[in-house]
Amino acid sequence: MAAPRLTVDEYVKGVLAGDRGVLSRAITLVESTLPSDRELAASVLTQVQGKGGHSFRLGITGVPGVGKSTFIDAFGMLLADAGHRVAVLAIDPSSQVTRGSILGDKTRMERLSRDPRAFIRPTPARGSLGGVARATREALLLCEAAGFDFIIVETVGVGQSEVAVHSMVDFFLLLMLAGAGDELQGIKKGIMEMADGLVINKADGDNRMRAKQARAEYETALHLFPLPPSGWSTPVLTCSATEGEGLGDILAMVERYKAQMAEGGWQAGKRRMQAKEWMHETMRHLLEADFLAHPAVQAAIGAWEMKVEAGEVPPTVAASRLIGLYLQALSGQTGH
Amino acid sequence: MAAPRLTVDEYVKGVLAGDRGVLSRAITLVESTLPSDRELAASVLTQVQGKGGHSFRLGITGVPGVGKSTFIDAFGMLLADAGHRVAVLAIDPSSQVTRGSILGDKTRMERLSRDPRAFIRPTPARGSLGGVARATREALLLCEAAGFDFIIVETVGVGQSEVAVHSMVDFFLLLMLAGAGDELQGIKKGIMEMADGLVINKADGDNRMRAKQARAEYETALHLFPLPPSGWSTPVLTCSATEGEGLGDILAMVERYKAQMAEGGWQAGKRRMQAKEWMHETMRHLLEADFLAHPAVQAAIGAWEMKVEAGEVPPTVAASRLIGLYLQALSGQTGH
Repeated sequence: MAAPRLTVDEYVKGVLAGDRGVLSRAITLVESTLPSDRELAASVLTQVQGKGGHSFRLGITGVPGVGKSTFIDAFGMLLADAGHRVAVLAIDPSSQVTRGSILGDKTRMERLSRDPRAFIRPTPARGSLGGVARATREALLLCEAAGFDFIIVETVGVGQSEVAVHSMVDFFLLLMLAGAGDELQGIKKGIMEMADGLVINKADGDNRMRAKQARAEYETALHLFPLPPSGWSTPVLTCSATEGEGLGDILAMVERYKAQMAEGGWQAGKRRMQAKEWMHETMRHLLEADFLAHPAVQAAIGAWEMKVEAGEVPPTVAASRLIGLYLQALSGQTGH
Repeated sequence: MAAPRLTVDEYVKGVLAGDRGVLSRAITLVESTLPSDRELAASVLTQVQGKGGHSFRLGITGVPGVGKSTFIDAFGMLLADAGHRVAVLAIDPSSQVTRGSILGDKTRMERLSRDPRAFIRPTPARGSLGGVARATREALLLCEAAGFDFIIVETVGVGQSEVAVHSMVDFFLLLMLAGAGDELQGIKKGIMEMADGLVINKADGDNRMRAKQARAEYETALHLFPLPPSGWSTPVLTCSATEGEGLGDILAMVERYKAQMAEGGWQAGKRRMQAKEWMHETMRHLLEADFLAHPAVQAAIGAWEMKVEAGEVPPTVAASRLIGLYLQALSGQTGH
C-alpha cells in the first residue's frame, strides 16, 4: 500500500518551492502512522518549520446540508481574487464510515478545484480523531511552508473534531441555516460558543427574511455569552454562497478580526498557546495510544471495564490497577 | 502532617454504619496522594462499592456572588425536611490561592451545618484539578456508602472544574443573577450548555421584575440549543434563597428530571457511561502525571516547550521525542 517515499531533502526542497506534487506526497507522508514514516515526517517538518511565510488559518464548521462546500468554493474564489493563495484541508473522522467525501472533496468545490491559485486536499480517509487531527495540523504546517497564506480547515459540526479544529485555527466560523432553532439539533453542544463568527447561509429568495430574523435571534443569544480576553464579540452575518451575496462582508469581518487580534499581541499569544497545547495534547495522545495498544493492557482492560460498569469496582481503583500492570510490563521489556 | 490511619475494616464498617467521624477520616484518606494511602483507599473503596443505597447527585455552579452558599443552605434544609439525608461536597481548585473557603465552608451554610441530617465537607485545600476531582468523586462514593441519598457537589463557575463536576452528577444546575447578560461574563464558555437546569437567584424585592425578564431571555436563548438524547429540555426558574421562594419548584424540577431519566433507562445508562469515562479519565490522568513527574522528562520538557513556542520545532516532533525519552528511561528501571 505505501507509496514510494522521497528523501528528506527532496520533500523539504519541493515543499518550500511550492511544488504541489511534492506537497501532496508530503501530506500523504504525515498521514501515515508507520514508525519509519513518522521518523521521516519528523525530519521534514523540523526542516520546513518556520521557513514558510505567515498564513491565516480559518476553521469552518456546520451540519451536513448547510452548504459548506459551496461556501468554501465561493469564498475561496473571493480570497484568490483578493490575491491570496488558498489551501483547503478537511478533518472529518466520520468519513471513515460513509467514505462519501473522499472522492467528492475535489469535485464538490467546482471552481476552486480548477483554480491554479488554490490547493484542495481531500479528507484523510481513516484513523482515530487524534490521529486525523495530528495529520491535519501537520498538513497545515506543510501548506504554510509551501507558501499558502490563507488556509481553510473544514469540519462537520457533529462531533469532537470541532474542538480539535478550534485549537489549530486563528478564526473559527460556524455556518448555519435559518429556521426556528431546529437546524441546530445536529450541532453538538458547545460548538456555538467556540465560534469567532456565525454566518447564516442560504439567505436568498424566500429565505431572506427568515435569515434576517434568525440573525437577530442569534445576536440576542450570543449577547448572553462572555467576551474572550481580546474583547472580540462574535458577529452574526448572513450570506448566499450560491448567489455570491454577503461574502465580502465575511472577508471584512475576518480582516477586522485579524487587525484587532494583532493589536496587543493577542494573535501571537494565541499561536504560542496553541503550539504548546498541541505539544501537550500530542504527548497525552501518544501516552494513551501506547498504553491502550500494549498487549498486557489489551488482555485485561475489557474485564475491568465490565466490573466498573456493573458497579463492582470503583473506577479509580480499576484505573490504577491497569496502570500498575502497564508500568510493570514496560519495565520488564525494551521500550517503544 | 498525616493523621493516624484506621484499618481497612474500621473504615469500611464505620462508613457503612454512617459514622460521621469515620466518614470524615475516610474522605481525608482518599484526598491523600501518598502511595500507601492510595493503596489503603483503594481497598476501602472496593469494599464499600455498591454496598450503600442509591443517591441522587446534584451539581451546582455559578459565579462568586450568585449566592451559592445561601442557596445550598436553604435548598438543603428543604431536602432534609422532605426526608432526605443530604451531603454537600465542594470542588474548587482555585481555593488553593484564596484559601477563603476552607474555614468558611461550614459557617457559610448556617442552618444546614448544624442540622444532624446533613453532612458538609469543606473544599479540599490543594492539588491539581485532576487530583481534586478524583478525591471529590471518591468522597461521593463514600457519602453514598454512608447512607446519604442526596449529594450536592458545589463548584465555582469560573474554570474547568465544571466539566469534572458535570461528569460526576445526575443533574447539573447553573445559578445565575438577573441583569443584561453582564453577569455571565465570569462564567466560562460552554458551561451554560452543560446545565440541566438554570435558576436565576435573588429574585426578590426590586429585582423580581428583572429576574422574570432574564428568565424569558434565557428561555429564548436555550431554545437555540439541541436537546440531549433523553429529550430533557433545560428549564429556567427563578428563586430567592434568602426569602425561601421558588425552592419547591426547583425540587419539583429535579423530581421531574429523575422520573423522565428513569424511563427508558437514561439514568442507568448515564451512570454506566460516567463510570467507564471516569475510569478512562483516571488512566489518562495517571499516565500523564507519571510522565510529567519522571526526572528524565522534567529535565528536558522546559527546553522543548521553549523551542515549540518559538516556532523552532513542530509540536508533534517535540512530543514524540519526549515520549521516546520517557519510555526508554522506564524500560531501564524498575516500575512505578
